[in-house]
Amino acid sequence: MLSNSRTQPHRRYNPLRRQWVLVSPQRTARPWQGQLNKPVAPDQQPYDPTCYLCPGNPRTSGDVNPQYPGVFAFDNDFPALLPPSATDLPAEHNGLLIAEPENGRCRVLCFHPNHSLTLSQMTPPDIEAVINVWAHETLVLGSDLAIQYVQIFENRGAMMGSSNPHPHCQIWATGHIPEEPAAEAESQLAHFQQHNRTLLADYLTQELKEKVRIVSENETFVAVVPFWAVWPFETLILPRDPIASFVDLTPAQTTGLADILKRVTTRYDNLFGVSFPYTMGFHQAPTDGEPHPEIHFHAHFYPPLLRSAEIRKFMVGFEMLGMPQRDITPEKAAEMLRAAPEL
Amino acid sequence: MLSNSRTQPHRRYNPLRRQWVLVSPQRTARPWQGQLNKPVAPDQQPYDPTCYLCPGNPRTSGDVNPQYPGVFAFDNDFPALLPPSATDLPAEHNGLLIAEPENGRCRVLCFHPNHSLTLSQMTPPDIEAVINVWAHETLVLGSDLAIQYVQIFENRGAMMGSSNPHPHCQIWATGHIPEEPAAEAESQLAHFQQHNRTLLADYLTQELKEKVRIVSENETFVAVVPFWAVWPFETLILPRDPIASFVDLTPAQTTGLADILKRVTTRYDNLFGVSFPYTMGFHQAPTDGEPHPEIHFHAHFYPPLLRSAEIRKFMVGFEMLGMPQRDITPEKAAEMLRAAPEL
Ligand SMILES: O=P(O)(O)O[C@H]1O[C@H](CO)[C@@H](O)[C@H](O)[C@H]1O
Ligand SMILES: O=P(O)(O)O[C@H]1O[C@H](CO)[C@@H](O)[C@H](O)[C@H]1O
Repeated sequence: MLSNSRTQPHRRYNPLRRQWVLVSPQRTARPWQGQLNKPVAPDQQPYDPTCYLCPGNPRTSGDVNPQYPGVFAFDNDFPALLPPSATDLPAEHNGLLIAEPENGRCRVLCFHPNHSLTLSQMTPPDIEAVINVWAHETLVLGSDLAIQYVQIFENRGAMMGSSNPHPHCQIWATGHIPEEPAAEAESQLAHFQQHNRTLLADYLTQELKEKVRIVSENETFVAVVPFWAVWPFETLILPRDPIASFVDLTPAQTTGLADILKRVTTRYDNLFGVSFPYTMGFHQAPTDGEPHPEIHFHAHFYPPLLRSAEIRKFMVGFEMLGMPQRDITPEKAAEMLRAAPEL
Repeated sequence: MLSNSRTQPHRRYNPLRRQWVLVSPQRTARPWQGQLNKPVAPDQQPYDPTCYLCPGNPRTSGDVNPQYPGVFAFDNDFPALLPPSATDLPAEHNGLLIAEPENGRCRVLCFHPNHSLTLSQMTPPDIEAVINVWAHETLVLGSDLAIQYVQIFENRGAMMGSSNPHPHCQIWATGHIPEEPAAEAESQLAHFQQHNRTLLADYLTQELKEKVRIVSENETFVAVVPFWAVWPFETLILPRDPIASFVDLTPAQTTGLADILKRVTTRYDNLFGVSFPYTMGFHQAPTDGEPHPEIHFHAHFYPPLLRSAEIRKFMVGFEMLGMPQRDITPEKAAEMLRAAPEL
């Protein structure tokens, strides 16, 4: 079907999320008279005296950042979640009105002291240092019995709601497994029980054979525009050998993950010649003390841009009320990303 | 729990969608240094010579709009879906790569010839005329055996990806029931089988008793900020008496729906003193020829604004990778909407 699917509407199934996405390739021809987002030029200066993430600067809480030389992690000054000790909310189960307390911890993690950098511009060893802290935070936060899941994510660019360009990510560790990883875990478990291989290992085998959606690869990791991608230039980053979590990364895999993150973010920046906005994050095994051989560790990149630095995809209307819909095919998106240089 | 829930993080359950949402009321205190969206001033002139939806103007397709006096519906010039006659795509079921043809029809529906109006500014009889066309389109599109669902939605405002301010909506009629209404139908069916009442009728009974989340009501319809709302000022509009679809509306309900749509959109505009952006749409029974006593017809309003005309909620990062998260409580949002005038 792939030749025709480039021009005719169809739907594709996401076996990880068990959801369909509508693909309407013929729609890319329509003219765009809607909102144009002027790309925000990245900050050029390595230090911004008004940035609350730069070394030595005060934060809103009154705390002052140390003169940190590498990665710097601290508790979010405006956390979405609080530890059990700070809350005393009873559950409410009143007919169809159901609410429960939710506890957790929110951390902020500066990738680098240099305000003007992005992941794409950092050196591989500096990215490796970040990965090591991701693993450390997963271990420490996850060892708290009140924490079931450690969600690491980066909002990059003003278009993605990031309020500060300083290279950083957030970690929200929660008392329950959030909806997305919980749904992915369910389908991964069903697949593993049936095949004794992870769903994403079987998927990767198919992708490596077909090659059309592969964006980049190295010895330990592969980046692919998933067959069921929702965002125009969405990618999925997978280790070749299934591991369940950051804490399982071998030294070779840490090096490989740093390498593939740099390759993919560089291609993104080069695609439209602009510092590429995105939400990125990792899905890993719950920290519930159980073994999770079914979970295949991975990263999702969800970038909003569609046709240029100024024209984004809006997930509104039919997407909010009906189902996700995309215009260009995943195959075309992968082709464009492959054509964007890795340097 | 409701008193404490105004200040402490918790999660609430959405029984319609069977999903949890994280509520972090304490987070509204954080400063915002991110993107500010300058509100686009609404067009003042009743006719715009460059608008492809105004009466008498040419569209991109080359067609010329008639001098329509009221509501005007036509086939979308850049449809996301095509009729079976225009497609010949075989299904692909290749391991984890699953794709199927998807057919349908896309319509555009101008609410009024006057370019400068919005639903909030239209007269109740003019809104009734729109509702009658929604019912007519549902009937006609739904009577096609290839169509299982008729999704009516409005993207209002540039912030919501609308490319034209002319008052209009879209209709996407699909060969399969899309994900959102399909998931809602499942939970509604389970509830109906167990209680012999619709899920939303039972929910409405609870809301009318508690009153704290009600925004507006009339003899036939009620608008409420749902207990499980995701968007800051999300509302759900429900008929008091369960009906399954637009085609079941009584004349009194048509009048009541026009009235409540005007009330709610007027409160929205008055909340921050700006023409309020939103995605709005209706969920109704599938047009699969089966009776659907479990389906309770309703409208969802999903507006993006959070704190002011300029500061929106970004559904990114944790929301994309973890689960939906909101800051202000639904009770507070309802209070603010009740305080905004209906005139
Ligand atoms: O069809 P329009 O108004 O050009 O486009 C808008 O609505 C569509 C349906 O919700 C979305 O798919 C598009 O992303 C959005 O920009
Ligand atoms: O925490 P920040 O960066 O201020 O805020 C950003 O990320 C959060 C977590 O994804 C979102 O809830 C906010 O909507 C977004 O603006």
